[in-house]
Amino acid sequence: MAIVDQALPHVANISPYIPGKPVSELQRELGLSRVTKLASNENPLGVSQRVEQAAQAALKTLGRYPDGNAYYLRSAIAEFTQRTMAEVMVGNGSNELLEFVGRVFAGPGDEIIFSQYAFAVYGITAQIVGATPVQVPAKDYGHDLAAMAAAITPKTKIIYLANPNNPTGSFFNAQALDAFMQQVPAHVVVVYDEAYLEYVERDDAPSGLALLDNYPNVIVTRTFSKAYGLAALRVGYLLAQPEVVGLLNRIRAPFNVNELSQVCAVAALGDQDFVSASVALNKQERSKVITALTQMGYQPLPSEGNFVCVNMGPNAASINQQLLQLGVIVRPVANYGMADFLRISIGTEAENAHLLSALAQVS
Amino acid sequence: MAIVDQALPHVANISPYIPGKPVSELQRELGLSRVTKLASNENPLGVSQRVEQAAQAALKTLGRYPDGNAYYLRSAIAEFTQRTMAEVMVGNGSNELLEFVGRVFAGPGDEIIFSQYAFAVYGITAQIVGATPVQVPAKDYGHDLAAMAAAITPKTKIIYLANPNNPTGSFFNAQALDAFMQQVPAHVVVVYDEAYLEYVERDDAPSGLALLDNYPNVIVTRTFSKAYGLAALRVGYLLAQPEVVGLLNRIRAPFNVNELSQVCAVAALGDQDFVSASVALNKQERSKVITALTQMGYQPLPSEGNFVCVNMGPNAASINQQLLQLGVIVRPVANYGMADFLRISIGTEAENAHLLSALAQVS
Repeated sequence: MAIVDQALPHVANISPYIPGKPVSELQRELGLSRVTKLASNENPLGVSQRVEQAAQAALKTLGRYPDGNAYYLRSAIAEFTQRTMAEVMVGNGSNELLEFVGRVFAGPGDEIIFSQYAFAVYGITAQIVGATPVQVPAKDYGHDLAAMAAAITPKTKIIYLANPNNPTGSFFNAQALDAFMQQVPAHVVVVYDEAYLEYVERDDAPSGLALLDNYPNVIVTRTFSKAYGLAALRVGYLLAQPEVVGLLNRIRAPFNVNELSQVCAVAALGDQDFVSASVALNKQERSKVITALTQMGYQPLPSEGNFVCVNMGPNAASINQQLLQLGVIVRPVANYGMADFLRISIGTEAENAHLLSALAQVS
Repeated sequence: MAIVDQALPHVANISPYIPGKPVSELQRELGLSRVTKLASNENPLGVSQRVEQAAQAALKTLGRYPDGNAYYLRSAIAEFTQRTMAEVMVGNGSNELLEFVGRVFAGPGDEIIFSQYAFAVYGITAQIVGATPVQVPAKDYGHDLAAMAAAITPKTKIIYLANPNNPTGSFFNAQALDAFMQQVPAHVVVVYDEAYLEYVERDDAPSGLALLDNYPNVIVTRTFSKAYGLAALRVGYLLAQPEVVGLLNRIRAPFNVNELSQVCAVAALGDQDFVSASVALNKQERSKVITALTQMGYQPLPSEGNFVCVNMGPNAASINQQLLQLGVIVRPVANYGMADFLRISIGTEAENAHLLSALAQVS
């Protein structure tokens, strides 16, 4: 009997991870001189100067352990969100925080509800903790909140909501969310994932902060990987009742967020001009890209994020391969059951021009 | 019914986390101009110049997600350890890897064996996964390998060994380890934690790499936080059979090690001169500190690490407080059941002089 046969059954049943190659390797293999990466919904402006300076200043102290309590970062987040520090927790990306919720509240026999086409981490979390994933069919590629409320059973422990949703860009408004929340029992955890919050332009957008005030069973998650431009550094945060944060902290490793990331996230939070510039660029370019794609005969879904999910028909996989040969990397979403779609991040003006000229060449 | 009452019982039973303050806050509160931190077994030389340069070069790309496969880092580790990339996994500190092993192989009803006075993460991991922690009484403040072998039951899933051990500095030799391994059934996972490997000066030291060749149930863990000087950045790695790595990867989040840490760890691995200088400094200073402590009437335990665990008698807590007032931070280990001891990291010549002069002033 070898140890590989000793893994917990629900872990052994998870699909094996298929390692990929970094962009630089791909570039070398294809002999490409120019690569435009529009695959991961990153901020095309990169990192702000203030963040770079803060990182610079911290390089001398990399030999010291991080502040395990993330005192300055949590303090800055508390001030920014007008909550107390006891309501703030930081994670190694919001991914880690989404997992913490699963690991604290759900196990074998429990149910975790999320929408079809919603962020993959919700379903993966259900698998990792051995809970039953309950994927509710989407409506117009977005959350069908009425169907999700109807899916609640006595076994339901967690409901994950993404607004806007990745990879589809779909969105639901405050009224719809409130109607939904009123149907959720108080003992069910609702995770409201606002990773793309900053890009939303709608007046009727829900406020995660208001949700926290009205519903103690809500956990709001946010990230520094998108509008704040810190994808490399892995920092996310969550807001919840102090008692809930206290529970989640019991499984958090003391140094889950490294020191440089803490320092950079504080600087990023203090540079709201950079966030505004990033959002303004996205607004302008998203509209241009959607118009151009439509003119080419493709069908982009409406998007409130920094990306657009485009129906390209049965040719999508082939188009993706051709784009790759032309040095443009976008994201196939066949793993989401959307084989006809490609998800395209909104880049800089030059990056989007590269995408559109490459698309004009594919057959 | 609130959601706080819905947590899994084994998580709810974990002791709440007590947040502390960062050193800079302490310094401000006590009005200290000079603080010497000898509390976390960090490398007193800090970060190497080559690492700093590598970090510098990577600052422009912080807006991009990390390489989720850690291709270059795993490749460098594979070359350094003479294993294949499929046998290498990287973690957000070795802490995360120690937890992954627990989460994959143990759950409620299973037993996890570790030594009294061993690294706290082993027992915490047992709690986090809901397994039964089996703490085997130490012998001379080190692992009692015979007693640990005798503690194996049909429920045993994992045995954690630390060599050298933190916080005691204790060590066991290759012959003792081999005799132990021959008593461990092949289906029980043995984690061999080599966090302090580089500091060992003994000729009869076991080789984690040889262990891997002889026992397929072994997982070796190592860290960049100590001799490599990257504590702030959280990078550890493990070596195991490819199938075991494959299993552990199923619960790893794709971006668990941030990009800057990957870049810096590659640079650190390539700067073995810095590691040698760090080890040489430790050798020289550890011996000086131990001699001085002994002359002062304290009883330091023998240590193969970059720290020394010192029996200071019933006055230890008071001495710790007095040192703090004098600007010297060391580590009380009462939480390990060693209330009479303080763990003191070996610093630079100047830092150790500060410690010793402060100790001369305490009563």
